[in-house]
Amino acid sequence: MAVPHASNCKNKNFFTSGSFPTLTFSKEQVIPPKQQRLLSHAELPFEIFPFGCFVNLKPHSEVEPHFNSGRKNKGKGDFMAAIQEKQVNGVDVESLFETIEQIKENPELANFKFRATNRWVDGTHNLARVKDFYGAQHQDDSRAPMAFDIDEPPILCGKNLGGNPVEYLLVALSGCLTTSMVAHAAAKGIEIKGIESRFEGDIDLRGFLGISEDVPVGYQQIRAIFKIDADISDQSKAELIEMGKKYSPVFNTISKGSTVAVELEK
Amino acid sequence: MAVPHASNCKNKNFFTSGSFPTLTFSKEQVIPPKQQRLLSHAELPFEIFPFGCFVNLKPHSEVEPHFNSGRKNKGKGDFMAAIQEKQVNGVDVESLFETIEQIKENPELANFKFRATNRWVDGTHNLARVKDFYGAQHQDDSRAPMAFDIDEPPILCGKNLGGNPVEYLLVALSGCLTTSMVAHAAAKGIEIKGIESRFEGDIDLRGFLGISEDVPVGYQQIRAIFKIDADISDQSKAELIEMGKKYSPVFNTISKGSTVAVELEK
Repeated sequence: MAVPHASNCKNKNFFTSGSFPTLTFSKEQVIPPKQQRLLSHAELPFEIFPFGCFVNLKPHSEVEPHFNSGRKNKGKGDFMAAIQEKQVNGVDVESLFETIEQIKENPELANFKFRATNRWVDGTHNLARVKDFYGAQHQDDSRAPMAFDIDEPPILCGKNLGGNPVEYLLVALSGCLTTSMVAHAAAKGIEIKGIESRFEGDIDLRGFLGISEDVPVGYQQIRAIFKIDADISDQSKAELIEMGKKYSPVFNTISKGSTVAVELEK
Repeated sequence: MAVPHASNCKNKNFFTSGSFPTLTFSKEQVIPPKQQRLLSHAELPFEIFPFGCFVNLKPHSEVEPHFNSGRKNKGKGDFMAAIQEKQVNGVDVESLFETIEQIKENPELANFKFRATNRWVDGTHNLARVKDFYGAQHQDDSRAPMAFDIDEPPILCGKNLGGNPVEYLLVALSGCLTTSMVAHAAAKGIEIKGIESRFEGDIDLRGFLGISEDVPVGYQQIRAIFKIDADISDQSKAELIEMGKKYSPVFNTISKGSTVAVELEK
């Protein structure tokens, strides 16, 4: 697959700062699970181990509790080194492969439903909330709620009470491409030391304002530049980017489009 | 335009809770502009009035300072009532119409570029940041930086340190549809008392995991239900939803798709 070149980007010099700035402000932290009320053994739909993920996707009553660290690898050929190195890039690779095997046996486990709610506050300010989701054949409402203030800058009639929606879209895209690269690199045994990226998208507001029917209302183009710190060649880094794109749900949702059905509550 | 019906949605009963829950946790507030260092008159690229937006999009040197409240309306026909009611739904309608007129004279003013950066932390945890943007023919770096933790729940190899990328996408969509409805309702003089919405999207993780090439990697479908509190008929509310969809940049980006170019920094 051809590596996209800078010539594909409308404007190469589009970032105002050259390096990722130091963050000095406080940020809201979601309460990590260990600080929440511990679920009793009977309440757990499956076993959750501190180092694992996806482990035991079968309903609790069907499995014996066990420790993940005692499992032998299943002989994954080229991935042997990765599997024996239980964590690569902070991803539990062994669990990841076990998940893949379980999903192959029961594809329904892979069906997830993610959710968000929103409440309008005033003007361009509204508040979104994320908490529960469905996946691996059960409803999960275990997380503390996460709130997101959405607003506009003053030039767009807002009060800077939060990022604006199209910025949140870039946030989503940046996170997804990054995680997709990290996870797939881990599966290939590729150790990553660092990843940074910068995103920019073009919008002609004449679409939003209804001034011109010929102008796209959404992003005309989104451009991203990734900086990857890893002991691999530039060609391998470029392949990692392609892998990230190929397997990123947000990248695919945006680049291929997805059906959005909106209705009025009766 | 036909109003989408519930039969278009794969699963009508998909929300676990019936009403929008009370938010009791603290949330990060971006420092509003008035608490930042006040820019000197010479530094302002244009005049910013506390009740206005978009006002005086010409470079500062070309205009005399003036107060927005003294302006007479320009006779907008059906919108007279809205204009004389300076604020509708918390949106400065008069400024909005002035903006539209200025953009018609100089379409370049409508070209905006929104940005985000991202830094990988560990595993499925990465940190996005939003600050500067380009619009109305100038770079804006006036906002305090906004940080967004992105992570996954434990079942997806994360530690719940933030919403996951596909949830952030729903956050973006919810905010955009809401703001689009509110702003266009304001332009039509429609007073809204409240808007709440709930979103859900389906993802088959076999795409992300690379298990099946036939499975879409992104959202297969996103469904949203809006509850609108306004003294208008259900038909008018349905039309408001259609207007929101038509003019929402995020809705259009997702439903029509957009080009995303990703490259490696050399």
